[in-house]
Amino acid sequence: MDIPNIDSVRAAAGRIAGHVHVTPVLRSAFMDALSGAELFFKCENFQKTGSFKARGACNAVFGLPREQHSRGVATHSSGNHAQALSYAAGRLGIAATVVMPSDAPRSKQNAVAGYGGRIVPCEPLNRARVETLERVIAETGSEFVHPYNDSRVIAGQGTCALELLEQSAPLDAVVAPIGGGGLMSGSCVTLSSLSPGTEIYAAEPEQADDAFQSLKAGHIVRMDRVRTVADGLKTSLEPLTWHFISRCVTGILTVSEQEIIGAMYRILERMKIVVEPSAATPLAAILGNPDRFAGKRIGVILSGGNVDLDRLPALSPAHTSAG
Amino acid sequence: MDIPNIDSVRAAAGRIAGHVHVTPVLRSAFMDALSGAELFFKCENFQKTGSFKARGACNAVFGLPREQHSRGVATHSSGNHAQALSYAAGRLGIAATVVMPSDAPRSKQNAVAGYGGRIVPCEPLNRARVETLERVIAETGSEFVHPYNDSRVIAGQGTCALELLEQSAPLDAVVAPIGGGGLMSGSCVTLSSLSPGTEIYAAEPEQADDAFQSLKAGHIVRMDRVRTVADGLKTSLEPLTWHFISRCVTGILTVSEQEIIGAMYRILERMKIVVEPSAATPLAAILGNPDRFAGKRIGVILSGGNVDLDRLPALSPAHTSAG
Repeated sequence: MDIPNIDSVRAAAGRIAGHVHVTPVLRSAFMDALSGAELFFKCENFQKTGSFKARGACNAVFGLPREQHSRGVATHSSGNHAQALSYAAGRLGIAATVVMPSDAPRSKQNAVAGYGGRIVPCEPLNRARVETLERVIAETGSEFVHPYNDSRVIAGQGTCALELLEQSAPLDAVVAPIGGGGLMSGSCVTLSSLSPGTEIYAAEPEQADDAFQSLKAGHIVRMDRVRTVADGLKTSLEPLTWHFISRCVTGILTVSEQEIIGAMYRILERMKIVVEPSAATPLAAILGNPDRFAGKRIGVILSGGNVDLDRLPALSPAHTSAG
Repeated sequence: MDIPNIDSVRAAAGRIAGHVHVTPVLRSAFMDALSGAELFFKCENFQKTGSFKARGACNAVFGLPREQHSRGVATHSSGNHAQALSYAAGRLGIAATVVMPSDAPRSKQNAVAGYGGRIVPCEPLNRARVETLERVIAETGSEFVHPYNDSRVIAGQGTCALELLEQSAPLDAVVAPIGGGGLMSGSCVTLSSLSPGTEIYAAEPEQADDAFQSLKAGHIVRMDRVRTVADGLKTSLEPLTWHFISRCVTGILTVSEQEIIGAMYRILERMKIVVEPSAATPLAAILGNPDRFAGKRIGVILSGGNVDLDRLPALSPAHTSAG
């Protein structure tokens, strides 16, 4: 395995500059009071393509050898990486093909098409994704850019924590969502090198707690057909992300669907910003573990804002435990 | 009438500093492409209490003579001024009583209570508000701080355009929503003095077009029982705001309910920020009048973000004309 390090992250930061935003860090007096902590919200919902995934995709695409350009790139993704790869390819003027589960949110499908990506639908199973992608690659010669089990992608995602440290250090802890583990792995690379005293927490839906189960078992536990409102967090760890998760993460905190929706609702109502359910899991984890976080300076990565607005009725306070 | 001028606005800016935010101006490549203009979004949805109304309320409250403090302040409001006055009074430790129509959004009622304001409900008619308020004032001796027909309030609202000019000048035009006309009047004071070449447009719901009708008739036209999703824009002009609207406004642009909801939906989806329907009317007006705005630098005042999230199903793209 090609294990990325802090030099990979710094190189990525240089490679993607000008193609992605340095996203702002927002504070909220309300959220500080609610959590008893000092929260620094890193707003990747304002990132190009609406999520942190633009970082890793740009790093992978802009580093391609010139002879690969004509054959393009391909991936499978539940959505945000698909948009990000389409965006990155579009900036370079090369083709992107994305294998996407047929139940992916409409807004994400529209966005991929809007960035010029070609969508190949598949059944919403991890195995179906992989098989369909293999066919695409055999047909096109595209370079596979995995959504997270890819050193280039992890190095790109590590630029998020790099900026967060520059904007808000010192931090006692950083909390980020975990799906396949790309954002967490990139955060591990950056934080363990530049701020080794900062605790690193992953927030995960109870209903898709494969990372939590993996850490408990000591090896990768895979799940299929998981159901959670946090659609970006359904994927399982792979060897490269397991490398970092098993070594660097302080803890994995699981949260209920109610807690995710409640946290998302509070962010919308009080901070006036749109985040997707996956992005609300860190706040849910912080609010669910006050003893662990009270009094500390916490970086909270709001990973994305690509929510399907026609699914928002689920946010109604009548459906949540939010007071 | 006590007509505020640019000195009143500057004095207000000094009086309220530290109690309200200097809100950011956001850009959006998508919105620029959609409109054909350069749009500078002044984010009063991020303002204290969730709307620009904090500016005027703070200016009125912090300028009160000391002997009035024990008797407090009172107002009638469909919501945002109520929150703002409660907040301002709370900062000073004095009482605020707000007469609020019984159909005001739940989130606004909760927020008033959260800031320590006392709510006295009334029927959702302009006349009922006034009569109930007169009773409250007779009982308490509170100082009436009108939501817009008040020189102190207008001067406070003028600080929004003052900041916008500092952040984004030169501007060819500024577009803001019009309800009772407080924000527009404050914008008129500031812009006509500091940037007389900037055109000033008011955006108004077709279904609550009293300002448009007033300008056409040459005198204040009042409406009662209007229905619009832009609940902050149901109020009618009063002499002090009519003074400015009739003299300084370049034009009033009316927009349909569909256009308001579509603009709000686009802001949520593409800019990832929460705005209330009233705040989306300027973008709706810009998108509905491309010939007037294309190629220009336009300040767009996103007046507030206090939307009842359980009313958001109306935002579903299936219900809008948004493509």
